[in-house]
Amino acid sequence: MESGLSEQRWKFRANEFYTSSSTISVRGILGRLWGSLSEDNPRPVIPLGHGDPSVFPCFCTSPVAEGAIFESVSSGGFNCYSYPVGILPARRYYLSKDLPYALSPDDVFLTVGCIQAIEVIISVLARPSANILLPRPGFFHYETCASSSNLEMRHFDLLPERGWEVDLMGVEKLADENTVAMVIVNPGNPCGNVYSYDHLKKVAEMAKKLGIMVISDEVYAHLVFGNTPFTPMGVFGSIAPVLTLGSISKRWIVPGWRLGWLVTTDPNGILTKHGVVESIKGFLSTSPDPATFIQGAVPQILEKTPDDFFSRTIDVLKQTADICYEMIKDIPCITCPYKPEGSMFVMVKLNLSMLDGVKDDVDFCMKLSKEESVIVLPGVVVGMKNWLRITFTIEPSLLRDGLERIKAFYERHAKAP
Amino acid sequence: MESGLSEQRWKFRANEFYTSSSTISVRGILGRLWGSLSEDNPRPVIPLGHGDPSVFPCFCTSPVAEGAIFESVSSGGFNCYSYPVGILPARRYYLSKDLPYALSPDDVFLTVGCIQAIEVIISVLARPSANILLPRPGFFHYETCASSSNLEMRHFDLLPERGWEVDLMGVEKLADENTVAMVIVNPGNPCGNVYSYDHLKKVAEMAKKLGIMVISDEVYAHLVFGNTPFTPMGVFGSIAPVLTLGSISKRWIVPGWRLGWLVTTDPNGILTKHGVVESIKGFLSTSPDPATFIQGAVPQILEKTPDDFFSRTIDVLKQTADICYEMIKDIPCITCPYKPEGSMFVMVKLNLSMLDGVKDDVDFCMKLSKEESVIVLPGVVVGMKNWLRITFTIEPSLLRDGLERIKAFYERHAKAP
Ligand SMILES: Cc1ncc(COP(=O)(O)O)c(C=O)c1O
Ligand SMILES: Cc1ncc(COP(=O)(O)O)c(C=O)c1O
Repeated sequence: MESGLSEQRWKFRANEFYTSSSTISVRGILGRLWGSLSEDNPRPVIPLGHGDPSVFPCFCTSPVAEGAIFESVSSGGFNCYSYPVGILPARRYYLSKDLPYALSPDDVFLTVGCIQAIEVIISVLARPSANILLPRPGFFHYETCASSSNLEMRHFDLLPERGWEVDLMGVEKLADENTVAMVIVNPGNPCGNVYSYDHLKKVAEMAKKLGIMVISDEVYAHLVFGNTPFTPMGVFGSIAPVLTLGSISKRWIVPGWRLGWLVTTDPNGILTKHGVVESIKGFLSTSPDPATFIQGAVPQILEKTPDDFFSRTIDVLKQTADICYEMIKDIPCITCPYKPEGSMFVMVKLNLSMLDGVKDDVDFCMKLSKEESVIVLPGVVVGMKNWLRITFTIEPSLLRDGLERIKAFYERHAKAP
Repeated sequence: MESGLSEQRWKFRANEFYTSSSTISVRGILGRLWGSLSEDNPRPVIPLGHGDPSVFPCFCTSPVAEGAIFESVSSGGFNCYSYPVGILPARRYYLSKDLPYALSPDDVFLTVGCIQAIEVIISVLARPSANILLPRPGFFHYETCASSSNLEMRHFDLLPERGWEVDLMGVEKLADENTVAMVIVNPGNPCGNVYSYDHLKKVAEMAKKLGIMVISDEVYAHLVFGNTPFTPMGVFGSIAPVLTLGSISKRWIVPGWRLGWLVTTDPNGILTKHGVVESIKGFLSTSPDPATFIQGAVPQILEKTPDDFFSRTIDVLKQTADICYEMIKDIPCITCPYKPEGSMFVMVKLNLSMLDGVKDDVDFCMKLSKEESVIVLPGVVVGMKNWLRITFTIEPSLLRDGLERIKAFYERHAKAP
């Protein structure tokens, strides 16, 4: 049979949407940066572009979380399929803690990481001619999901000079009759911002004025180490309906466990009335679930992890954020408008006029990778050309080494004055 | 702020695709059947409608699989994000065993259960005007995915009188210039069929003649207990490109672990040439991954599970399939055209003319649930009205009890001759 293959005509072709590499993706650009590392550089690679600190010894998860998995597997009770919305015990022990009203398990939907929570809500809101307001800079996965479900995106600015607050006037101008939701990320990726109670209240009031819901990505919830305490957006659920997205990935430093959630904080029942809750359930009934035994471990993970585990993480984050902020001051070609108070990242502005032969942020990062074996994310992939996103969740000694190398890179490429 | 809520206008509405309950889904119908159980029936419910035997003591997973998870978690090496296609060790130890040629890790893509593998390939093949050929009866998730990605479906028959073989002449008639693939499920859900080497070869030859690929759902691979040995479709990958879907759910009885795969067996590289492989990678780069530490356990699970674990499962399946087949002979209103040789199910034809006051298969199942607390799946949800799908993966004593109750139900509802 094989012989005729050369003349054989095969009729299938792939959906080009998934092959098109025209979109700049984080995974794609990181792949290129790693690919451009110089092979004969004897120094270790310093990765300052990632969002996953779990490989560094100073960021390892709590034994309580591991123990919860052991117990869940050993029980033999969680080998079965889950329910589409997640198993009840995992939806019960939860989140109300920080809110002025109690949630019910019906408000909680478990997902395969926060990534899937984003996919769920974007798909549920996608309708012909609807549009959604996204922050710039932001987290690329919102763009990916919106474009694959044909939901129109409009971008509002975050204001560096105001601690990356939402440009609320811009939001108001952007919105129209077909706007359905706005997204905020708090604590922020890529900016390291933490929004105050007052600012979040204003966001809720703007959403109410516009008749839209707020999608609050709190995957970095509680990872704060500055002056602003973390306020969950759900606190304002009685002003405008709030959909909170989160996961155990960051706070427990187990991004590979793939356990996230989508929580409705909507004491006035508006999301239910508008079919959003039904639609979320419908979407989840045909999409992948998080592993059942990991769901089985959730009550213990959420309730039993000791405070000192969290405070140890915060201490390291505070220390590395400080190192990062201070050392950046010594690198003339980048400036940091805001000292990070949360999450794992900081955005810095690249001053190209101080550099010789560096075209833009991507060029900067490619050359930095090649010459110094330091990986940094070009701002363009998070929506801000000629900025850089630097991750500081890494061993302090490596972070220092990385920033020194960036400085050396600058010195070698500095334009003569 | 709350006061103005009554006049407040909220502009969002949900995507109706996910709220529409017009489609008959397995999850939906099982929900209705469980809902119609009589509350005052003191007897235990006998579930013969499920695809998840993990809750029954005679179907519990191997300690080797559990041990592999413990080791993977304890190592601390798998808390990180995965690669979109899965981590290398889990894609290496694999599948070539049953094939005449070796696969490379590049042929293997890990997914969140076989469910996600189905979603991946349907999405990748969906293009305007393309169509796919699906078996009837079949597995509902293909229909769900095809309708959500606008891929036209056409159904070919499986022939009960020929051991549920594919009606190849029907396939040929159905196909046209825009047909891209055909799906087979082997061992079969819902029919319990196992296809012979010769029949699968004919399927491959037909696919070649039509210029389409074969998608072979082998989630029940190796669960065979009749005269026909299991042949992986990949054996014929040099005749037509084959995409094999599978998971650890059924063979290891851990459906909640959510670890599946999609494997290309295509020694002539046709899928790569047509962009299918690139598109699969593209799709996976933005969709949820299986938990990394479960991937980390895959090499041990696949390589170290002792044969006697598998043979114990097969023994129970053989025993329960026999009980089921023999007892069905004693229930006049249902007939079984084919003794199951694999998977966990059998299809039986309902003879409504022998029953009084039973409208159709759904009515039969609803009344059976209410009166006898026995759950059976109406054929209409798998594409065959007035048939039933009976699951025999359950403790033998419960299975006997269930079938006796079905007989009692018949006797009570039998039409006077
Ligand atoms: C803002 C934001 N949202 C969501 C996610 C996804 O998180 P998860 O690991 O829970 O899927 C990330 C991960 O980096 C993130 O930065
Ligand atoms: C034919 C078929 N394919 C795929 C699946 C999904 O399997 P998994 O548990 O690996 O997602 C099932 C589950 O019942 C099935 O019967």
